[in-house]
Amino acid sequence: MKLNPGRWLPPMEWLRSYHRGMAANDLLAAVIVTVMLIPQSLAYALLAGLPAEMGLYASILPLVLYAIFGTSRTLSVGPVAVISLMTATAVGKVAAGGSADYASAAVAMAMISGLMLIGMGLLRFGELANLLSHSVVSGFITASGIIIAVSQIRHIAGISGHGDNLPALFGSMLGELSGFSLPTLLVGVGALLVLLWIRRDLARLLQAVGVPAAVADIFAKAGPVLVIAVTTWISYSAGLEAQGVAVVGVVPSGLPAFSTPVFSVALWSELAVSALLISLIGFVESVSVGKTLGAKRRQNINPNQELVALGAANVASSLSSGFPVTGGFSRSVVNFDAGAQTQMAGVMAALGIALATLFLTPVLYYLPQATLAATIIVAVTSLIDVALLRRAWRYSRRDFIAVTVTIAATLALGVELGVLAGIVVSVALHLHKTTRPHIAIVGEVPGTEHFRNVMRHDVITYPSIVSIRVDESLYFANASYLENTVYAIVAGRQDLRHIILQCTAVNEIDLSALETLEQIDHRLREQGIALHLSEVKGPVMDALRRTDFIDSLSGQVYLSQHQAVESLRPLGGVAVE
Amino acid sequence: MKLNPGRWLPPMEWLRSYHRGMAANDLLAAVIVTVMLIPQSLAYALLAGLPAEMGLYASILPLVLYAIFGTSRTLSVGPVAVISLMTATAVGKVAAGGSADYASAAVAMAMISGLMLIGMGLLRFGELANLLSHSVVSGFITASGIIIAVSQIRHIAGISGHGDNLPALFGSMLGELSGFSLPTLLVGVGALLVLLWIRRDLARLLQAVGVPAAVADIFAKAGPVLVIAVTTWISYSAGLEAQGVAVVGVVPSGLPAFSTPVFSVALWSELAVSALLISLIGFVESVSVGKTLGAKRRQNINPNQELVALGAANVASSLSSGFPVTGGFSRSVVNFDAGAQTQMAGVMAALGIALATLFLTPVLYYLPQATLAATIIVAVTSLIDVALLRRAWRYSRRDFIAVTVTIAATLALGVELGVLAGIVVSVALHLHKTTRPHIAIVGEVPGTEHFRNVMRHDVITYPSIVSIRVDESLYFANASYLENTVYAIVAGRQDLRHIILQCTAVNEIDLSALETLEQIDHRLREQGIALHLSEVKGPVMDALRRTDFIDSLSGQVYLSQHQAVESLRPLGGVAVE
Repeated sequence: MKLNPGRWLPPMEWLRSYHRGMAANDLLAAVIVTVMLIPQSLAYALLAGLPAEMGLYASILPLVLYAIFGTSRTLSVGPVAVISLMTATAVGKVAAGGSADYASAAVAMAMISGLMLIGMGLLRFGELANLLSHSVVSGFITASGIIIAVSQIRHIAGISGHGDNLPALFGSMLGELSGFSLPTLLVGVGALLVLLWIRRDLARLLQAVGVPAAVADIFAKAGPVLVIAVTTWISYSAGLEAQGVAVVGVVPSGLPAFSTPVFSVALWSELAVSALLISLIGFVESVSVGKTLGAKRRQNINPNQELVALGAANVASSLSSGFPVTGGFSRSVVNFDAGAQTQMAGVMAALGIALATLFLTPVLYYLPQATLAATIIVAVTSLIDVALLRRAWRYSRRDFIAVTVTIAATLALGVELGVLAGIVVSVALHLHKTTRPHIAIVGEVPGTEHFRNVMRHDVITYPSIVSIRVDESLYFANASYLENTVYAIVAGRQDLRHIILQCTAVNEIDLSALETLEQIDHRLREQGIALHLSEVKGPVMDALRRTDFIDSLSGQVYLSQHQAVESLRPLGGVAVE
Repeated sequence: MKLNPGRWLPPMEWLRSYHRGMAANDLLAAVIVTVMLIPQSLAYALLAGLPAEMGLYASILPLVLYAIFGTSRTLSVGPVAVISLMTATAVGKVAAGGSADYASAAVAMAMISGLMLIGMGLLRFGELANLLSHSVVSGFITASGIIIAVSQIRHIAGISGHGDNLPALFGSMLGELSGFSLPTLLVGVGALLVLLWIRRDLARLLQAVGVPAAVADIFAKAGPVLVIAVTTWISYSAGLEAQGVAVVGVVPSGLPAFSTPVFSVALWSELAVSALLISLIGFVESVSVGKTLGAKRRQNINPNQELVALGAANVASSLSSGFPVTGGFSRSVVNFDAGAQTQMAGVMAALGIALATLFLTPVLYYLPQATLAATIIVAVTSLIDVALLRRAWRYSRRDFIAVTVTIAATLALGVELGVLAGIVVSVALHLHKTTRPHIAIVGEVPGTEHFRNVMRHDVITYPSIVSIRVDESLYFANASYLENTVYAIVAGRQDLRHIILQCTAVNEIDLSALETLEQIDHRLREQGIALHLSEVKGPVMDALRRTDFIDSLSGQVYLSQHQAVESLRPLGGVAVE
């Protein structure tokens, strides 16, 4: 491997041309992102079932580590909604909610996931993420958004309840209706309505009074901070806590202490599968955000290096008592729109959050949890892609099935089984398609050397020759289908003497398919029919040459289909058009 | 579905032309097969850890049911080595060996597997068997043969021991060496040597003294019966049981009673995965035997109907206190070679076994278990395919890896994990290949309309046009690889204005790949480059037309690559050869 520090430490490239103008841009973006990140970090810690300060901790060191190793200049790393939900699901299986074990399992999860990501990056396993089709990821994120929104209803209504799938959530909430609190509901619904109004109308309103579009947009996106400030002030001045409104409560002041996550073989192996899923989803989400932003400024991102950077960010989160993080969509867009030029903006935002943990925590005491729940609900509505099902349905049944299964499994069984079901179904559907490849009988288009499907074109054929084109690589999963199709084609053609397999679309013939071809040849030979191949690709031919298949074949291998038919067609015979 | 009794009840076809000559042939075959089946049935019951009579029970009704529903005229159904080992493994997980629960779990296993097979047949899921590549099946059967042979050493040496993988088998045998019995070893090794001699030399010897080859062959195959008769007589007359030689013991006389298998949700769900694997392996083995024999007499077999027939045979086995069965290779070959014409031979053999259970069981008391173990060892040596690894290595690394993993996993972890590992690895290797498809830059061969790889041929290209041929369908698992490759090709080509994707080998574009193409187009457009497609296949074009992709594409879709280059090449420009 070539030693190239710029490859492993991207700042070594951009720092060289860093100047004061860029720093000013980065600082402005950092201030805006910090203001937005404080409530978001608290909210996602709440969503993960963790103490609020852990959300802040997860938004300091991880940003610095990503700045050092990450290849995106504008990606913003930290707690995000879907990963927080997945963390809650995974950790909830090994520890009781709210316990010290629960928090330390979440810290361990960040470490496991971080090490996995670094390992995948070093081994260049970025392609593992290919298992997740866009359809599955979109379906999964949509369903997760719905689950998250529903799960926050309890904080808005002041009732308890838990679960990582819809039946469990509704079931537990219905069982806990007695805890209902009217003041909480008023705060929650009030915050929700204001937030929705800010999101829909504020930017337009500000522009109407002369504020530049970009600035208006940023104000609208930072709107939640206003709502948080106001409800916190109301909560404080009206003494809402005494009236049964749950507040964030004591948030320890000061920077996170360095912590070593629990290492226990039992715990780590229990969390391993969940950690792998969290790593995959986090990586896919982050890379897709990074690519989208990078494309706008023609900046490339390197997937394997991204794995290392996200891994380092998670390890850092774990060492500073945080939980799993990844590159988030909304925070990165705010960072980008606010004019961030480099990851220096990320470092500055980390500094901002660090200052907040030092000085702002006493104020956060009175912040109602219902307000945070409302900000989560508004944030995740952008994850829900309602047009997805229709788009998939219109395009192809396979994509539609994959999306539907992913959404249904996620909603009904929870995030982990949802992702797994999506992966299994999309892989199975793809394999299933290749098990029944399109197989056409072809003939020569008159006056050309081209061969086309006899069903679609007027072509020349001969009773003694059948040319078959298989539109798929031949491998174990479709070998028997090919065999059955060839026998079906042969049946009832009394004059048949030659079968030519046109291999234009055959990119591989594996050992199972080779053995099947030998069987087909053997059986055809008994019926006085010779099997020929044409247009076999180089790599396939190389593999066949390492066996005695071609020597023992009853027919020949021709360079082109035209050549094959020319040398096999009966002299003076009659073409059937 | 068309009502066609001949399709569902194959005897309705062959019975019409059944005549006395065929009946005579079938009767002869049935007598030979019966003689061979009696020791084999006892031996495989022993291998499955079950009472000897259950082997006989599994060889009566299942043969009749297969005769009614099966499409192979000569396949012989009953207990077989690999399925018996898999049954022992599965049942051993839910019940202690030798207990009544163990036997009843085996009976339940036949029922579950039978119902699964019938279900798969009715749903036409025969293609599920496609998941098993020839390489995986051969590797699995070879490894199972080794495990079976090793597991029988204990019966030959008179020691105990158990396990379904090599480490467990060797470990438990070493721990039980104290039980070693010299008389048992003498019987076992003696039987083994005689059996090996019969297998290797008897047919040749008989032919040398003038016996016709076919008859000599059948005698050689029925050889085990002779060995069993002789050792049973020795055991009886020398009172071997008193000297510590384990004998078969009391085999209840009489036909099996009708029994209802235990139905318990807990038990059935514990056995479900094992039953699925047993069904798959049994089906694949049986169909491959059926196809091989059918090809010799130009008789077709119908895979989905075979599922129903094997399912019915297993249900029948369960209802008559038997255990899982399938079509066996050696028994079917004997049946075929002995001249069986139709499944009437199977019905007659069932009758023969039924007579044996009525009248022969007292004799079986003295049969040494070591003799049965010796017959098993000799039988499974034919399963072990030593050339397999070399063949796979020579042909392709992927097949070699699949075979190696299957063999290693089966030997080290047992049959179930072995099959699963084989399936997972072979599917993963196939997918992995398609995630990094062969992508070539192509140019026009001078004087033709053909386009070939610029790396292999002298072709005409233009600085403003790059033609790219992707040798794979575009789908979620390779979409990002295509994206990265296109960007890498674009980088550094200053004069580039047009990219043409030649889609000859693209049999599908799924929604993920479509979205990626849109992203590529978007990004290229920003760089002043147009994206074109050529030679898009009909079904792919149909799907694209259902979206606005073609309308929004920066370039055109051309019918042929030649046409695309002709209309895009710079007028008066310079071709670079």
